[in-house]
Amino acid sequence: MGDVNANTACVVGVDFGTLSGRAVVVSVADGTELGSAVHEYPNAVIDAVLPATGAALPPDWALQDPEDYREVLRTAVPAAVEAAGVDPRQVIGIATDFTACTVLPVLGDGTPLCELPELRDRPHAYPKLWRHHAAQAQANRINALAHERGEPWIGRYGGKISSEWQFAKALQLLEEDPEVYGRTERWIEAADWIIWELCGTETRNACTAGYKGIFQDGGYPSEEYLGALNPRFADFARTRLEHPISPLGARVGSLTAEAAKWTGLPEGIAVAAGNVDAHVAAPAAQAIEHGQMLAIMGTSTCHVMNGGDLVEVPGICGVVDGGIVAGSHGYEAGQSGVGDIFAWWLRQGLPEHYHEAARSLGLDAHEYLTRLAAGQPAGGHGLVALDWQSGNRSVLVDHHLSGVIAGLTLATRPEEVYRALLESTAFGARKIVETFEAAGVPVTEFVVTGGLKKNAFLMQIYADVLRRPIAIGTSEQGPALGSAIHAAVAAGAYPDVRAASGAMGGVERGAYVPDPARAGVYDRLYAEYLRLHDYFGVGADLMPHRLREIRDEALNS
Amino acid sequence: MGDVNANTACVVGVDFGTLSGRAVVVSVADGTELGSAVHEYPNAVIDAVLPATGAALPPDWALQDPEDYREVLRTAVPAAVEAAGVDPRQVIGIATDFTACTVLPVLGDGTPLCELPELRDRPHAYPKLWRHHAAQAQANRINALAHERGEPWIGRYGGKISSEWQFAKALQLLEEDPEVYGRTERWIEAADWIIWELCGTETRNACTAGYKGIFQDGGYPSEEYLGALNPRFADFARTRLEHPISPLGARVGSLTAEAAKWTGLPEGIAVAAGNVDAHVAAPAAQAIEHGQMLAIMGTSTCHVMNGGDLVEVPGICGVVDGGIVAGSHGYEAGQSGVGDIFAWWLRQGLPEHYHEAARSLGLDAHEYLTRLAAGQPAGGHGLVALDWQSGNRSVLVDHHLSGVIAGLTLATRPEEVYRALLESTAFGARKIVETFEAAGVPVTEFVVTGGLKKNAFLMQIYADVLRRPIAIGTSEQGPALGSAIHAAVAAGAYPDVRAASGAMGGVERGAYVPDPARAGVYDRLYAEYLRLHDYFGVGADLMPHRLREIRDEALNS
Repeated sequence: MGDVNANTACVVGVDFGTLSGRAVVVSVADGTELGSAVHEYPNAVIDAVLPATGAALPPDWALQDPEDYREVLRTAVPAAVEAAGVDPRQVIGIATDFTACTVLPVLGDGTPLCELPELRDRPHAYPKLWRHHAAQAQANRINALAHERGEPWIGRYGGKISSEWQFAKALQLLEEDPEVYGRTERWIEAADWIIWELCGTETRNACTAGYKGIFQDGGYPSEEYLGALNPRFADFARTRLEHPISPLGARVGSLTAEAAKWTGLPEGIAVAAGNVDAHVAAPAAQAIEHGQMLAIMGTSTCHVMNGGDLVEVPGICGVVDGGIVAGSHGYEAGQSGVGDIFAWWLRQGLPEHYHEAARSLGLDAHEYLTRLAAGQPAGGHGLVALDWQSGNRSVLVDHHLSGVIAGLTLATRPEEVYRALLESTAFGARKIVETFEAAGVPVTEFVVTGGLKKNAFLMQIYADVLRRPIAIGTSEQGPALGSAIHAAVAAGAYPDVRAASGAMGGVERGAYVPDPARAGVYDRLYAEYLRLHDYFGVGADLMPHRLREIRDEALNS
Repeated sequence: MGDVNANTACVVGVDFGTLSGRAVVVSVADGTELGSAVHEYPNAVIDAVLPATGAALPPDWALQDPEDYREVLRTAVPAAVEAAGVDPRQVIGIATDFTACTVLPVLGDGTPLCELPELRDRPHAYPKLWRHHAAQAQANRINALAHERGEPWIGRYGGKISSEWQFAKALQLLEEDPEVYGRTERWIEAADWIIWELCGTETRNACTAGYKGIFQDGGYPSEEYLGALNPRFADFARTRLEHPISPLGARVGSLTAEAAKWTGLPEGIAVAAGNVDAHVAAPAAQAIEHGQMLAIMGTSTCHVMNGGDLVEVPGICGVVDGGIVAGSHGYEAGQSGVGDIFAWWLRQGLPEHYHEAARSLGLDAHEYLTRLAAGQPAGGHGLVALDWQSGNRSVLVDHHLSGVIAGLTLATRPEEVYRALLESTAFGARKIVETFEAAGVPVTEFVVTGGLKKNAFLMQIYADVLRRPIAIGTSEQGPALGSAIHAAVAAGAYPDVRAASGAMGGVERGAYVPDPARAGVYDRLYAEYLRLHDYFGVGADLMPHRLREIRDEALNS
């Protein structure tokens, strides 16, 4: 740590989200969060028109502007240091985490193609945000060919590569704008690109390479496979991706003079390998031992968990060696809709007089519905719902599924549907946990972080439905703290992420404990959920797909 | 017609509903409705406490006070005559229709037991309204035993006798209050009791005897069967029901001096046999030929249709010789929830800003949602629903079923669910029509009357879903007009109900015509409806029943 006192040493973690970046200054000794600051991206999500030209984008596109990311370094980082009231010279390292897969084409020196004046008007020159969904046709071909050829890596991804990931987006670029593809010297995750900006050299991290870049067993998909997708795609991985993979927490470089000027931090401090917002939250919540499943619960839920052996679990997002912590196999699964389903009902499903009653009690709609729902015994609504309003990520990996509510009567009240929706996401989580365990990957603990951890009624439902205690990550800014932990490791303050997590992370174990009586009722409702799950979600003849087809034909005719 | 001029002769029809009675004065010559008046029952539905004592009633009870019915004769009838501006001496007959099965215990002279001072405090002495649902245990035994013994009549009722009907309610009376049962000299439909009040003698009409009293092939269920239900019940039909059955439209007596004083009508005019509100509407809408199905659409829908042959159609409410018009077999089917499902969604499913938008446009919630829903092409919502929020009457005869909505996404809007609910009831109607046709009873025309006939968007959906033109009954008070038609026949102004219907009824044929493109889309959605229908509603292992069990156990624990 050079001449910085170990008791006052700090690190900076920067969490790059979908709409803003958040920097936090953390004490290396005990993880105390000393100060933080947020910078909203001026261009946010570019999904309607390209700002440079005003030209309309096609449906399902979602781009971003890399300059928005740099601005987080220039504004949020110094603001966080100021808020922390620390001397910048106390900061010994910086680490970042990013949404993923958010990926961009750059020159050999890291310059984003969208910053070349002659390419400012080309949508394909911009970073494609994780939720860019216009490469589904390419993803379908990637999957069909992988199964046809029996590619060994496809089982690591639950049998399906997402249209959100690196290869689908790159193939779309090649096929829709060959000229921009021709100019692409490197195809890089924003998670790695921001590190390039900080330390001046290209790096690749184990997390995004594995989960989003199909890097498995030391290599990318073969040239034969890629060439069969498209002959011009054969050399894609070799020419545009190949690079040594850095383990998470590794020091991959030192802060450049220019980045020191942007951030106000000392030149030459440690810069850690890039990381992903969900995965980096695991050490912040001390959920890194094998079998500790961390659920990052917000509009959607991401589940990350370390395991010892490499097991191919059906319907998960991926399993990556060192994908969460070096030395373990990191598993990722997810639920595509959670908090956004609750928000949908709060927005649509409440009559006027409910809002009036809530206001008169000084409650918001969520609080009022929760109070009403909590007054009823488990199962008292007679409802069961499928949590598929936004499709199903794990374990069906089917974004064309849709939600179902069964058991409605003329006496069904809004708070009853609300509770059934809360429960449906808990049932979805239980299905994921049971799928892991059925595949031979034990889940020993369920830890929750993210915005929904504050919803005590929901947390109790999860404890009851999962029939296990729920632990709660204590940090309000889990990803940024997780990055700070990686910065401390990169700076040499701890020997590894496990040790740093133990000192700097925080979790409240057994925050919610299952009630046996309610758990018994939920067992019965979960059995009904599984019946709906299999009836609507499994098999070749899927009603939700047909309803979607009818809808799409009607709207396009 | 005595000395009344045929051109100015009038009849009075009185429709006794659940909450009020309506009298209408009608021109015999052409059915013109000259004047009407309504009397609200002061005691309405007695379902909480018995007014005489203030004692609480058990759950699912629903009683009425017969004095409320008499008051309709004393107030609404003279008011209607005054509103019509006719001389009471022009009135040549009176007929009534009633809710059914609404049934009461009386003495041999017609005195309701509840009017005996010593029985004023006995709930079982009062008329049990059609929607009294506390005799389900008795109905279950009635059905089980009928199937066990292979009773020949059970197939005439779709395989199931309702807890609402005469035998279940009588058996409940016997078993719960044997003393009141012992005082019961006659067990009579309110439809027949009101005729007793008008003409002074007991009569029994073919409609309620057949549909509600299991009167088939000239007799009631056997003493052996009734004795097997309960030994003390063996002589029930022989001692308390047996009486000659009057055909509909028959003159069963003459207005007594006392009833003439109540009504202001001439003593001695024709009084027609009793009738039921749904069935009596058929001649008012000129829907009496074989194959003309009349749907009386309101909070629920009742379907009545004449056919030539006697066919046992699965899942219908009943088939009765002369049950609608003498000389034909009258079929009855029903949907337990229609308008009340729409009302449920309008009450619960609309966000505050929808109400604000509706108000700013000067529309009510229904009109506003309809406008929004009508703007979307058929199938554009991607939804399909089951119309079982209030159970399913035909063709599943299962009041423990519940509603389902499938195809929900985060983009699903309230008007889309509303439209899916409208469509679900049209699918339910199509299932009924197809069940009749599959059993060999052709449905040649679909005629609608009742409050929902004014909902043009709904009527067009029915035309499209049923793939046939929808005719609309023109009278705004179909049952009361239907009674007036029967009064005219009873008075001898027409030879039979068919002739009177042709002169006095009214219908707009082809008011809505199916659109082939929309009908094609609805065919596809109907196929999905049928899949849900069979998955949730057919078979021994029914999810809605289990959800209801879970609910009932939760709420009672």
